[in-house]
Amino acid sequence: MKIIYADNAATTRVMPEVFGSMKPFFEEHFGNPSSLYSIGRFSKNVLEKSRKSIADCINAKPNEIFFTSGGTESDNWALKSCVRLNPGDHIITSKIEHHAVLKSAKYLETQGIRVTYLDVDKFGLVNPESLEKEINQGTKLVSIMTANNEIGTIEPISELSKICRKKNVKFHTDAVQAVGHIEIDVEKMGIDMLSASAHKFGGPKGIGFLYIKNGIASSPLIHGGAQESNRRAGTENIPYIVGMAKALEISCSKMDSNRSHLLNLQKKLVDNILSIEETILTGHPTIRTPGSASFCFKGIEGESLLLHLDALGICGSSGSACTSGSLDPSHVLLAIGLPHEVAHGSLRLTLGPDNTMEDVDYIISVLPSVVKKLRLMSPIWEKMSK
Amino acid sequence: MKIIYADNAATTRVMPEVFGSMKPFFEEHFGNPSSLYSIGRFSKNVLEKSRKSIADCINAKPNEIFFTSGGTESDNWALKSCVRLNPGDHIITSKIEHHAVLKSAKYLETQGIRVTYLDVDKFGLVNPESLEKEINQGTKLVSIMTANNEIGTIEPISELSKICRKKNVKFHTDAVQAVGHIEIDVEKMGIDMLSASAHKFGGPKGIGFLYIKNGIASSPLIHGGAQESNRRAGTENIPYIVGMAKALEISCSKMDSNRSHLLNLQKKLVDNILSIEETILTGHPTIRTPGSASFCFKGIEGESLLLHLDALGICGSSGSACTSGSLDPSHVLLAIGLPHEVAHGSLRLTLGPDNTMEDVDYIISVLPSVVKKLRLMSPIWEKMSK
Repeated sequence: MKIIYADNAATTRVMPEVFGSMKPFFEEHFGNPSSLYSIGRFSKNVLEKSRKSIADCINAKPNEIFFTSGGTESDNWALKSCVRLNPGDHIITSKIEHHAVLKSAKYLETQGIRVTYLDVDKFGLVNPESLEKEINQGTKLVSIMTANNEIGTIEPISELSKICRKKNVKFHTDAVQAVGHIEIDVEKMGIDMLSASAHKFGGPKGIGFLYIKNGIASSPLIHGGAQESNRRAGTENIPYIVGMAKALEISCSKMDSNRSHLLNLQKKLVDNILSIEETILTGHPTIRTPGSASFCFKGIEGESLLLHLDALGICGSSGSACTSGSLDPSHVLLAIGLPHEVAHGSLRLTLGPDNTMEDVDYIISVLPSVVKKLRLMSPIWEKMSK
Repeated sequence: MKIIYADNAATTRVMPEVFGSMKPFFEEHFGNPSSLYSIGRFSKNVLEKSRKSIADCINAKPNEIFFTSGGTESDNWALKSCVRLNPGDHIITSKIEHHAVLKSAKYLETQGIRVTYLDVDKFGLVNPESLEKEINQGTKLVSIMTANNEIGTIEPISELSKICRKKNVKFHTDAVQAVGHIEIDVEKMGIDMLSASAHKFGGPKGIGFLYIKNGIASSPLIHGGAQESNRRAGTENIPYIVGMAKALEISCSKMDSNRSHLLNLQKKLVDNILSIEETILTGHPTIRTPGSASFCFKGIEGESLLLHLDALGICGSSGSACTSGSLDPSHVLLAIGLPHEVAHGSLRLTLGPDNTMEDVDYIISVLPSVVKKLRLMSPIWEKMSK
């Protein structure tokens, strides 16, 4: 059976060119970049070239890019350590952030930090005016994601950061679902810190970066050796850093053609799936990442739907992979105002550049009958239909 | 020119079998282990098999192994979060720990934690009686490394942990230089937490683990998704986890033969290098990791020596790779009582299973003349010789 992978927001296949770029750095060029001899200096050189390549893709300076073990570490670092927080200080985030941000914020609450979780509208958008109202004298940091991982909605980052700049508050964005997919220009967008993760754009899992604008005070999350300008200790993961740079370079160079391809697929997928009765699109209809399509089917359980789709060779998810296995409905779907029983029937399909119109045709050919079948077995649907 | 790599304590070449084991997990089996569909479950299965394999190698239970981005993160986690520390609490470590431990301890001092840094003897050994004397009511954690990264000395872990157990204090060990090289049995050795890093035993850089004994209270260092039993968030780095398990499995199965091979090489290397006048062996003469050989050559600068050796195709180091570039003499060499000017003339050669007797013969054939040449140019040597 052909497998149709439609869960690119959870993780992506490593691109062949990316694997090729990493390969020489395992057995051949394996030097520690901190070592003084030639094979160490070779690694150091590769490290700095990768840093520059990544910086170029988001219009940052190389010395503003710090390599981490992924988006989660980057978010933790940004929230916990990139502003010197003291009890009583205040940070603002939104109700629909990834758990890497939300659980870091919850941890900060245990340390005496006050946290405001902004509401979002029915599309998942943060209102810049609401943000402005919540900023006070003690506010040190605002963290709002660039694009939501469950519903694809893209936040008005430039507007939000402008307010922060005006009020002299630092602005961080979790751009894990955005980098490599939509254009990111940290200067134009007024971003002070930005988190990214390679495995969301065709790179390997376990590597990411935090952009920290020059002049932004920060302390390390991980202490030790002098790596990363004394700001993130630990021997650098050269193969993955090279792979991430290559993946981002490819993703950025193909961004326009990928976007138009994905918008085509997305349109057909969404139009057809919405023709199933009692189905809603979650997230913004147009201001969303290309290739992302998320729905709620009233009267069914998302998990059952996923298992049926899996049996048909379709890989999708009900929300964030990071929280799968949890029986609670998605915090994102609740935050956009969906009732519990509707939120339970969610499906997220996230297409990538490798997906084809045939994939979409197959999905839309089988999905309606699966939904129908599940509804026939569903006591909730039975109750709803009465 | 043939390159002789003699800096295996800095990092190791990824073993071919390790690279082979990781390869299918980049492009083919790339599923997110948190995903519910078949390719996700496949990854989850591989993840748990790797965890069991690693646990078996150190006589731990699989649910006591937590994957991290490396030894540095593991050390940070163990010190900062694995005991619930409050201002006024006390931890004990030694003066010769890796910076991942020392700088985490320094950070804890800024949070109101008291830290005792134990002295070591001239071989770098921690005295169990000194440890016992320093433990008081407020002591929450003792962290002593299993083997030192600069001088190879192996600490009396079982004796130290026994004291901690008696006094009801948690015992952590940074075993980054020991795991895969000498036998580790967390049960027999009485260890509550242990840090390890794959790239020190033929695995890739950027992956490690923290062993946390069942029942030991801990809070996450990195918050977010539900991965690693809710204790370490972030999408799991499946290829590297598989590679680390394979590298450890190979290292442990070949440990006896590697040891006798390395002891042979080490003996010849040490005996010959010590025949150079005004040269001392640093670290313990016998209680040290196999293959490690560290020296101080009076009257010369370690860095100049390294550059000359590099030109001759020999990769060595003057101490920890993580602190190279620093002009300060090694904290380890100062702690074992060497004066500044002697500590500056240090050379660390760390052989691995791939090294041959021919490598050793080459090193000992060129090293004396390099030392002689450098001493001829050295004002310190000139002063000493008068």
